[in-house]
Amino acid sequence: MIKPFDFFFDFISPYSYLAHKQIRKLEKENNIKINYKPILLGGLHKLAGVTAAAFIPSKTKYMIRDCKMIAEKHNIKFKFNTNFPINSLALMRGVFLAQNKKKLDQYVDFFFDAYWEDGLNLNSDKILNSILINLNINFNEFQLIISDQKIKNKLTVQTNEAYNKGVFGAPSFIINNKLFWGQDRLEFVLKEAQR
Amino acid sequence: MIKPFDFFFDFISPYSYLAHKQIRKLEKENNIKINYKPILLGGLHKLAGVTAAAFIPSKTKYMIRDCKMIAEKHNIKFKFNTNFPINSLALMRGVFLAQNKKKLDQYVDFFFDAYWEDGLNLNSDKILNSILINLNINFNEFQLIISDQKIKNKLTVQTNEAYNKGVFGAPSFIINNKLFWGQDRLEFVLKEAQR
Repeated sequence: MIKPFDFFFDFISPYSYLAHKQIRKLEKENNIKINYKPILLGGLHKLAGVTAAAFIPSKTKYMIRDCKMIAEKHNIKFKFNTNFPINSLALMRGVFLAQNKKKLDQYVDFFFDAYWEDGLNLNSDKILNSILINLNINFNEFQLIISDQKIKNKLTVQTNEAYNKGVFGAPSFIINNKLFWGQDRLEFVLKEAQR
Repeated sequence: MIKPFDFFFDFISPYSYLAHKQIRKLEKENNIKINYKPILLGGLHKLAGVTAAAFIPSKTKYMIRDCKMIAEKHNIKFKFNTNFPINSLALMRGVFLAQNKKKLDQYVDFFFDAYWEDGLNLNSDKILNSILINLNINFNEFQLIISDQKIKNKLTVQTNEAYNKGVFGAPSFIINNKLFWGQDRLEFVLKEAQR
Protein backbone atom coordinates (compact mmCIF):
# COMPACT_ATOMS: atom_id res chain seq x y z
CA MET A 1 0.00 0.00 0.00
CA ILE A 2 1.30 3.40 -1.04
CA LYS A 3 -0.16 6.63 0.29
CA PRO A 4 -0.54 9.47 -2.24
CA PHE A 5 1.86 12.40 -1.86
CA ASP A 6 2.09 15.98 -3.10
CA PHE A 7 4.25 16.52 -6.17
CA PHE A 8 5.29 20.13 -6.83
CA PHE A 9 6.27 20.73 -10.43
CA ASP A 10 6.84 23.24 -13.23
CA PHE A 11 7.07 22.24 -16.89
CA ILE A 12 10.26 24.32 -17.14
CA SER A 13 12.15 21.89 -14.89
CA PRO A 14 13.73 18.86 -16.61
CA TYR A 15 14.07 17.07 -13.28
CA SER A 16 10.31 17.59 -12.75
CA TYR A 17 9.72 15.84 -16.07
CA LEU A 18 11.97 12.96 -15.01
CA ALA A 19 10.06 12.71 -11.71
CA HIS A 20 6.71 12.90 -13.53
CA LYS A 21 7.62 9.94 -15.74
CA GLN A 22 8.61 7.84 -12.72
CA ILE A 23 5.42 8.88 -10.92
CA ARG A 24 3.20 7.87 -13.85
CA LYS A 25 4.78 4.42 -13.73
CA LEU A 26 4.24 4.31 -9.97
CA GLU A 27 0.58 5.33 -10.35
CA LYS A 28 -0.02 2.58 -12.85
CA GLU A 29 1.77 -0.13 -10.88
CA ASN A 30 0.06 0.75 -7.63
CA ASN A 31 -3.28 1.95 -8.90
CA ILE A 32 -3.05 5.29 -7.08
CA LYS A 33 -3.21 8.98 -7.99
CA ILE A 34 -0.44 11.34 -6.92
CA ASN A 35 -1.41 14.96 -6.15
CA TYR A 36 0.07 17.10 -8.91
CA LYS A 37 0.64 20.61 -7.52
CA PRO A 38 1.58 23.27 -10.09
CA ILE A 39 3.93 26.00 -8.90
CA LEU A 40 5.77 28.79 -10.68
CA LEU A 41 9.41 27.79 -10.23
CA GLY A 42 10.72 31.26 -11.07
CA GLY A 43 8.50 32.79 -8.40
CA LEU A 44 9.46 30.13 -5.86
CA HIS A 45 13.16 30.67 -6.52
CA LYS A 46 12.70 34.40 -5.97
CA LEU A 47 10.98 33.77 -2.64
CA ALA A 48 13.69 31.34 -1.51
CA GLY A 49 16.64 33.35 -2.82
CA VAL A 50 17.71 30.55 -5.15
CA THR A 51 19.43 31.12 -8.51
CA ALA A 52 18.17 28.54 -11.00
CA ALA A 53 20.69 26.21 -12.63
CA ALA A 54 19.56 27.72 -15.95
CA PHE A 55 21.33 30.95 -14.98
CA ILE A 56 24.62 29.37 -13.85
CA PRO A 57 26.54 28.33 -17.00
CA SER A 58 28.57 25.49 -15.45
CA LYS A 59 25.45 24.09 -13.78
CA THR A 60 23.43 24.25 -17.00
CA LYS A 61 26.15 22.43 -18.88
CA TYR A 62 26.30 19.68 -16.27
CA MET A 63 22.52 19.45 -15.93
CA ILE A 64 22.10 18.55 -19.60
CA ARG A 65 24.34 15.47 -19.25
CA ASP A 66 23.00 14.64 -15.80
CA CYS A 67 19.40 14.55 -17.04
CA LYS A 68 20.40 12.29 -19.92
CA MET A 69 22.08 9.86 -17.50
CA ILE A 70 19.00 9.73 -15.28
CA ALA A 71 16.66 9.33 -18.25
CA GLU A 72 18.79 6.43 -19.49
CA LYS A 73 18.78 4.80 -16.06
CA HIS A 74 14.98 4.86 -15.90
CA ASN A 75 14.34 4.19 -19.59
CA ILE A 76 12.71 7.58 -20.10
CA LYS A 77 12.64 9.26 -23.50
CA PHE A 78 14.35 12.61 -23.07
CA LYS A 79 15.85 15.37 -25.18
CA PHE A 80 17.22 18.52 -23.60
CA ASN A 81 15.14 21.33 -25.10
CA THR A 82 17.15 23.90 -27.08
CA ASN A 83 14.41 26.40 -26.14
CA PHE A 84 15.46 26.44 -22.50
CA PRO A 85 14.52 28.26 -20.40
CA ILE A 86 11.14 29.58 -21.50
CA ASN A 87 8.47 31.51 -19.61
CA SER A 88 6.21 28.83 -18.13
CA LEU A 89 3.69 31.21 -16.54
CA ALA A 90 0.82 30.67 -19.03
CA LEU A 91 1.32 26.89 -19.09
CA MET A 92 1.32 26.64 -15.30
CA ARG A 93 -1.83 28.79 -14.99
CA GLY A 94 -3.35 26.50 -17.60
CA VAL A 95 -3.02 23.53 -15.24
CA PHE A 96 -5.92 24.96 -13.20
CA LEU A 97 -8.01 25.35 -16.34
CA ALA A 98 -7.29 21.73 -17.24
CA GLN A 99 -8.22 20.69 -13.71
CA ASN A 100 -11.60 22.45 -14.05
CA LYS A 101 -12.17 20.70 -17.38
CA LYS A 102 -11.22 17.33 -15.84
CA LYS A 103 -8.29 17.09 -18.23
CA LEU A 104 -5.48 17.45 -15.71
CA ASP A 105 -3.67 14.18 -16.49
CA GLN A 106 -3.77 14.66 -20.24
CA TYR A 107 -2.71 18.31 -20.00
CA VAL A 108 0.28 17.50 -17.82
CA ASP A 109 1.32 14.55 -19.99
CA PHE A 110 1.00 16.50 -23.24
CA PHE A 111 2.97 19.55 -22.14
CA PHE A 112 5.72 17.65 -20.32
CA ASP A 113 6.22 15.43 -23.38
CA ALA A 114 6.04 18.34 -25.82
CA TYR A 115 8.80 20.16 -23.95
CA TRP A 116 11.13 17.38 -22.81
CA GLU A 117 10.53 14.61 -25.31
CA ASP A 118 9.68 16.43 -28.53
CA GLY A 119 11.80 19.53 -27.91
CA LEU A 120 9.03 21.95 -28.89
CA ASN A 121 9.12 25.68 -28.18
CA LEU A 122 6.13 26.13 -25.87
CA ASN A 123 6.43 29.91 -26.02
CA SER A 124 5.29 29.79 -29.64
CA ASP A 125 1.55 30.46 -30.00
CA LYS A 126 1.38 28.22 -33.04
CA ILE A 127 2.83 25.24 -31.14
CA LEU A 128 0.74 26.00 -28.05
CA ASN A 129 -2.38 26.03 -30.23
CA SER A 130 -1.54 22.69 -31.86
CA ILE A 131 -1.20 21.04 -28.42
CA LEU A 132 -4.41 22.64 -27.16
CA ILE A 133 -6.24 21.31 -30.25
CA ASN A 134 -5.13 17.81 -29.29
CA LEU A 135 -6.52 18.46 -25.82
CA ASN A 136 -9.74 19.79 -27.33
CA ILE A 137 -9.20 23.16 -25.65
CA ASN A 138 -9.92 26.33 -27.62
CA PHE A 139 -6.89 28.63 -27.88
CA ASN A 140 -8.87 31.86 -27.35
CA GLU A 141 -10.75 30.39 -24.40
CA PHE A 142 -7.40 29.27 -22.96
CA GLN A 143 -5.96 32.78 -23.27
CA LEU A 144 -9.08 34.31 -21.73
CA ILE A 145 -9.24 31.97 -18.75
CA ILE A 146 -5.54 32.09 -17.86
CA SER A 147 -5.81 35.91 -17.85
CA ASP A 148 -8.54 35.70 -15.22
CA GLN A 149 -7.47 37.17 -11.89
CA LYS A 150 -8.74 34.13 -9.97
CA ILE A 151 -6.52 31.72 -11.93
CA LYS A 152 -3.55 34.09 -11.63
CA ASN A 153 -4.04 34.26 -7.88
CA LYS A 154 -4.37 30.50 -7.60
CA LEU A 155 -0.86 29.90 -8.97
CA THR A 156 0.59 32.64 -6.76
CA VAL A 157 -1.17 31.28 -3.67
CA GLN A 158 -0.07 27.71 -4.37
CA THR A 159 3.52 28.81 -4.95
CA ASN A 160 3.50 30.82 -1.71
CA GLU A 161 1.99 27.89 0.18
CA ALA A 162 4.69 25.58 -1.14
CA TYR A 163 7.37 28.04 -0.04
CA ASN A 164 5.82 28.30 3.41
CA LYS A 165 6.02 24.51 3.70
CA GLY A 166 9.77 24.67 3.03
CA VAL A 167 9.76 24.02 -0.73
CA PHE A 168 12.58 25.88 -2.55
CA GLY A 169 12.91 23.94 -5.82
CA ALA A 170 11.28 21.48 -8.19
CA PRO A 171 10.54 18.67 -8.23
CA SER A 172 9.57 18.55 -4.56
CA PHE A 173 7.43 16.07 -2.71
CA ILE A 174 5.59 16.28 0.61
CA ILE A 175 4.23 13.31 2.51
CA ASN A 176 3.49 12.95 6.22
CA ASN A 177 4.54 16.62 6.51
CA LYS A 178 8.03 15.70 5.32
CA LEU A 179 9.67 17.47 2.40
CA PHE A 180 11.82 15.78 -0.23
CA TRP A 181 13.63 17.58 -3.04
CA GLY A 182 14.82 16.16 -6.34
CA GLN A 183 13.77 13.21 -8.48
CA ASP A 184 16.64 11.23 -6.95
CA ARG A 185 14.85 11.37 -3.59
CA LEU A 186 11.78 9.48 -4.86
CA GLU A 187 13.17 6.33 -3.20
CA PHE A 188 12.85 8.07 0.19
CA VAL A 189 9.38 9.40 -0.71
CA LEU A 190 8.26 5.85 -1.48
CA LYS A 191 9.64 4.55 1.78
CA GLU A 192 7.70 7.25 3.62
CA ALA A 193 4.59 6.56 1.52
CA GLN A 194 4.61 2.91 2.57
CA ARG A 195 4.58 3.66 6.30
CA MET B 1 38.23 -3.74 -12.07
CA ILE B 2 37.62 -0.16 -11.02
CA LYS B 3 39.68 2.74 -12.37
CA PRO B 4 40.60 5.42 -9.83
CA PHE B 5 38.81 8.76 -10.23
CA ASP B 6 39.29 12.33 -9.00
CA PHE B 7 37.28 13.28 -5.91
CA PHE B 8 36.97 17.03 -5.27
CA PHE B 9 36.10 17.80 -1.66
CA ASP B 10 36.03 20.38 1.11
CA PHE B 11 35.62 19.44 4.80
CA ILE B 12 32.89 22.11 5.05
CA SER B 13 30.58 20.09 2.80
CA PRO B 14 28.43 17.44 4.54
CA TYR B 15 27.75 15.73 1.20
CA SER B 16 31.54 15.51 0.66
CA TYR B 17 31.78 13.69 3.99
CA LEU B 18 29.01 11.29 2.93
CA ALA B 19 30.83 10.68 -0.36
CA HIS B 20 34.16 10.21 1.46
CA LYS B 21 32.69 7.49 3.67
CA GLN B 22 31.31 5.62 0.66
CA ILE B 23 34.64 6.03 -1.15
CA ARG B 24 36.63 4.61 1.78
CA LYS B 25 34.41 1.52 1.65
CA LEU B 26 34.92 1.31 -2.09
CA GLU B 27 38.70 1.60 -1.72
CA LYS B 28 38.75 -1.22 0.80
CA GLU B 29 36.49 -3.54 -1.16
CA ASN B 30 38.32 -2.99 -4.45
CA ASN B 31 41.83 -2.49 -3.16
CA ILE B 32 42.27 0.83 -5.00
CA LYS B 33 43.12 4.42 -4.08
CA ILE B 34 40.87 7.29 -5.16
CA ASN B 35 42.52 10.65 -5.92
CA TYR B 36 41.50 13.04 -3.17
CA LYS B 37 41.61 16.59 -4.58
CA PRO B 38 41.21 19.38 -2.01
CA ILE B 39 39.44 22.53 -3.21
CA LEU B 40 38.15 25.62 -1.44
CA LEU B 41 34.40 25.33 -1.87
CA GLY B 42 33.80 28.99 -1.04
CA GLY B 43 36.27 30.06 -3.72
CA LEU B 44 34.82 27.64 -6.25
CA HIS B 45 31.28 28.89 -5.59
CA LYS B 46 32.45 32.46 -6.15
CA LEU B 47 34.03 31.50 -9.49
CA ALA B 48 30.90 29.64 -10.61
CA GLY B 49 28.39 32.19 -9.29
CA VAL B 50 26.80 29.66 -6.95
CA THR B 51 25.22 30.55 -3.61
CA ALA B 52 25.96 27.79 -1.10
CA ALA B 53 23.02 26.00 0.54
CA ALA B 54 24.43 27.26 3.84
CA PHE B 55 23.33 30.78 2.88
CA ILE B 56 19.79 29.87 1.74
CA PRO B 57 17.71 29.21 4.90
CA SER B 58 15.15 26.82 3.35
CA LYS B 59 17.95 24.84 1.69
CA THR B 60 19.96 24.62 4.91
CA LYS B 61 16.93 23.35 6.80
CA TYR B 62 16.26 20.68 4.18
CA MET B 63 19.93 19.72 3.84
CA ILE B 64 20.15 18.76 7.51
CA ARG B 65 17.36 16.18 7.16
CA ASP B 66 18.52 15.09 3.73
CA CYS B 67 22.03 14.31 4.99
CA LYS B 68 20.61 12.29 7.86
CA MET B 69 18.49 10.24 5.44
CA ILE B 70 21.48 9.51 3.23
CA ALA B 71 23.70 8.65 6.20
CA GLU B 72 21.07 6.23 7.44
CA LYS B 73 20.73 4.61 4.01
CA HIS B 74 24.49 3.95 3.85
CA ASN B 75 24.99 3.15 7.54
CA ILE B 76 27.24 6.17 8.03
CA LYS B 77 27.64 7.79 11.44
CA PHE B 78 26.61 11.41 11.01
CA LYS B 79 25.68 14.44 13.11
CA PHE B 80 24.93 17.78 11.51
CA ASN B 81 27.52 20.15 13.02
CA THR B 82 26.05 23.06 14.97
CA ASN B 83 29.24 24.97 14.03
CA PHE B 84 28.21 25.21 10.40
CA PRO B 85 29.47 26.80 8.28
CA ILE B 86 33.05 27.45 9.38
CA ASN B 87 36.04 28.82 7.48
CA SER B 88 37.74 25.76 6.03
CA LEU B 89 40.69 27.59 4.42
CA ALA B 90 43.39 26.52 6.91
CA LEU B 91 42.17 22.92 6.97
CA MET B 92 42.10 22.66 3.19
CA ARG B 93 45.60 24.15 2.88
CA GLY B 94 46.67 21.61 5.49
CA VAL B 95 45.76 18.76 3.14
CA PHE B 96 48.89 19.59 1.09
CA LEU B 97 51.02 19.58 4.24
CA ALA B 98 49.61 16.16 5.15
CA GLN B 99 50.32 14.96 1.62
CA ASN B 100 53.96 16.02 1.95
CA LYS B 101 54.19 14.21 5.26
CA LYS B 102 52.59 11.07 3.73
CA LYS B 103 49.68 11.41 6.13
CA LEU B 104 47.00 12.31 3.62
CA ASP B 105 44.59 9.46 4.41
CA GLN B 106 44.77 9.91 8.14
CA TYR B 107 44.45 13.69 7.91
CA VAL B 108 41.35 13.49 5.74
CA ASP B 109 39.76 10.79 7.91
CA PHE B 110 40.46 12.64 11.14
CA PHE B 111 39.12 16.02 10.04
CA PHE B 112 36.06 14.69 8.23
CA ASP B 113 35.13 12.61 11.30
CA ALA B 114 35.87 15.43 13.73
CA TYR B 115 33.53 17.75 11.87
CA TRP B 116 30.68 15.47 10.73
CA GLU B 117 30.74 12.65 13.24
CA ASP B 118 31.93 14.28 16.45
CA GLY B 119 30.45 17.75 15.80
CA LEU B 120 33.64 19.58 16.78
CA ASN B 121 34.28 23.26 16.06
CA LEU B 122 37.30 23.11 13.77
CA ASN B 123 37.75 26.88 13.90
CA SER B 124 38.85 26.52 17.53
CA ASP B 125 42.64 26.46 17.87
CA LYS B 126 42.36 24.23 20.92
CA ILE B 127 40.38 21.60 19.02
CA LEU B 128 42.56 21.93 15.93
CA ASN B 129 45.62 21.36 18.11
CA SER B 130 44.15 18.24 19.73
CA ILE B 131 43.50 16.69 16.32
CA LEU B 132 46.96 17.64 15.05
CA ILE B 133 48.50 16.00 18.13
CA ASN B 134 46.73 12.76 17.18
CA LEU B 135 48.21 13.12 13.71
CA ASN B 136 51.63 13.78 15.21
CA ILE B 137 51.76 17.20 13.53
CA ASN B 138 53.08 20.18 15.48
CA PHE B 139 50.56 23.02 15.76
CA ASN B 140 53.12 25.80 15.20
CA GLU B 141 54.68 23.99 12.27
CA PHE B 142 51.17 23.55 10.82
CA GLN B 143 50.44 27.28 11.13
CA LEU B 144 53.80 28.16 9.58
CA ILE B 145 53.50 25.82 6.62
CA ILE B 146 49.89 26.67 5.73
CA SER B 147 50.91 30.35 5.69
CA ASP B 148 53.53 29.61 3.08
CA GLN B 149 52.75 31.26 -0.26
CA LYS B 150 53.43 28.01 -2.16
CA ILE B 151 50.78 26.10 -0.20
CA LYS B 152 48.34 29.01 -0.50
CA ASN B 153 48.83 29.08 -4.26
CA LYS B 154 48.42 25.33 -4.53
CA LEU B 155 44.89 25.42 -3.15
CA THR B 156 43.99 28.38 -5.37
CA VAL B 157 45.44 26.71 -8.45
CA GLN B 158 43.67 23.42 -7.73
CA THR B 159 40.37 25.21 -7.16
CA ASN B 160 40.77 27.16 -10.41
CA GLU B 161 41.71 23.99 -12.28
CA ALA B 162 38.60 22.25 -10.97
CA TYR B 163 36.45 25.18 -12.06
CA ASN B 164 38.02 25.12 -15.52
CA LYS B 165 37.08 21.45 -15.79
CA GLY B 166 33.44 22.34 -15.12
CA VAL B 167 33.33 21.70 -11.36
CA PHE B 168 30.93 24.06 -9.54
CA GLY B 169 30.23 22.25 -6.27
CA ALA B 170 31.36 19.51 -3.90
CA PRO B 171 31.53 16.61 -3.86
CA SER B 172 32.45 16.30 -7.52
CA PHE B 173 34.08 13.45 -9.38
CA ILE B 174 35.92 13.30 -12.68
CA ILE B 175 36.68 10.13 -14.58
CA ASN B 176 37.34 9.62 -18.30
CA ASN B 177 37.01 13.42 -18.59
CA LYS B 178 33.42 13.19 -17.39
CA LEU B 179 32.15 15.26 -14.48
CA PHE B 180 29.71 14.03 -11.85
CA TRP B 181 28.28 16.14 -9.04
CA GLY B 182 26.84 14.98 -5.74
CA GLN B 183 27.30 11.89 -3.59
CA ASP B 184 24.10 10.50 -5.11
CA ARG B 185 25.89 10.28 -8.48
CA LEU B 186 28.52 7.83 -7.20
CA GLU B 187 26.57 5.00 -8.87
CA PHE B 188 27.20 6.65 -12.25
CA VAL B 189 30.86 7.28 -11.36
CA LEU B 190 31.27 3.59 -10.58
CA LYS B 191 29.67 2.57 -13.85
CA GLU B 192 32.09 4.86 -15.69
CA ALA B 193 35.01 3.56 -13.58
CA GLN B 194 34.28 0.01 -14.64
CA ARG B 195 34.45 0.74 -18.37
